[in-house]
Amino acid sequence: MARWQPGARERLQQSALDLFLEHGFERTTVAEIAARADLTERTFYRHFADKREVLFDGQDRLLHAFVDAVAAAPVEASPRELAEAAVVGSRDFFTEERRPWSRRRHQAISSEDGLRERESLKMGSLAAAVAQALRERGVEDPLAELAADAAISVFRVSFVQWIAPEETRTMGEIQSELFAAQRALG
Amino acid sequence: MARWQPGARERLQQSALDLFLEHGFERTTVAEIAARADLTERTFYRHFADKREVLFDGQDRLLHAFVDAVAAAPVEASPRELAEAAVVGSRDFFTEERRPWSRRRHQAISSEDGLRERESLKMGSLAAAVAQALRERGVEDPLAELAADAAISVFRVSFVQWIAPEETRTMGEIQSELFAAQRALG
Repeated sequence: MARWQPGARERLQQSALDLFLEHGFERTTVAEIAARADLTERTFYRHFADKREVLFDGQDRLLHAFVDAVAAAPVEASPRELAEAAVVGSRDFFTEERRPWSRRRHQAISSEDGLRERESLKMGSLAAAVAQALRERGVEDPLAELAADAAISVFRVSFVQWIAPEETRTMGEIQSELFAAQRALG
Repeated sequence: MARWQPGARERLQQSALDLFLEHGFERTTVAEIAARADLTERTFYRHFADKREVLFDGQDRLLHAFVDAVAAAPVEASPRELAEAAVVGSRDFFTEERRPWSRRRHQAISSEDGLRERESLKMGSLAAAVAQALRERGVEDPLAELAADAAISVFRVSFVQWIAPEETRTMGEIQSELFAAQRALG
């Protein structure tokens, strides 16, 4: 077994993000990321498949949090409430400690077409997973798709607001306001 | 000026789709598409930038139809009604004559990761364009984004239903039912 380096993953993430913002994503190499973190490339590849993975490694856990929250929602929940439960169930990911990282990550992603596309596709994957979780709770199409899309729309917009420079509301506060605004669309 | 070949564009589209479905998108070359249509590669490139463009060339016109319909909607329209106008304004694209082509196009796209991603990104572009059209009609964020996402959700789901094998309802009928179902989410 390889020796485990405490904090290596976090150091690699910080170094990668620093370099992406300094020199651009394309021009940053894995060798540079490892060197900046005072680690070897080998250690980098023990944690991440490639440099893009540094920015998207949380996607699977997020997706599972969404799906698990739908499965755990009360039996009497409506399709919309089931879908909203998915979004509410992911709030623990978006803590105050995480906000600065999320802001910098967003900055890195915004400056690169390929990364923006990847982020957009991530939203599509989340919507598809939530729709499937709704079907498993007995919601039929097309309601499952419409309710899942509505919830992911709030998730997407809440994230944009949460990482805005002067924003101080918590993710929970933002999402509650957006769910209300969405219902009020009439 | 190059001589114009009547029907060349349509013949190239049909040939391309035939070949994509027979041999797969990746393994089809522009030379083969042109040969199947009894035209030259030069003629192909007069109509399309590359073979992927054959499947996505309608996107700009669709986007303009969406945006124009928002601009033309009544002054008293609510944010949701403005966004719905965008979708309603694109119905002329989805005629009975077009349905077989759309079904085959969908089949070609479904079998290729890169094409599915491109289709997913197209929906994101449409949502962003509708949100911007809403802002130009005085709708503020986040309502502009939420209403645009809701309309594009109906558009996306309506398209999936419209091209289903046994489906006979018109796009207009499908979308009216989906708009009602979305409102009924409560």
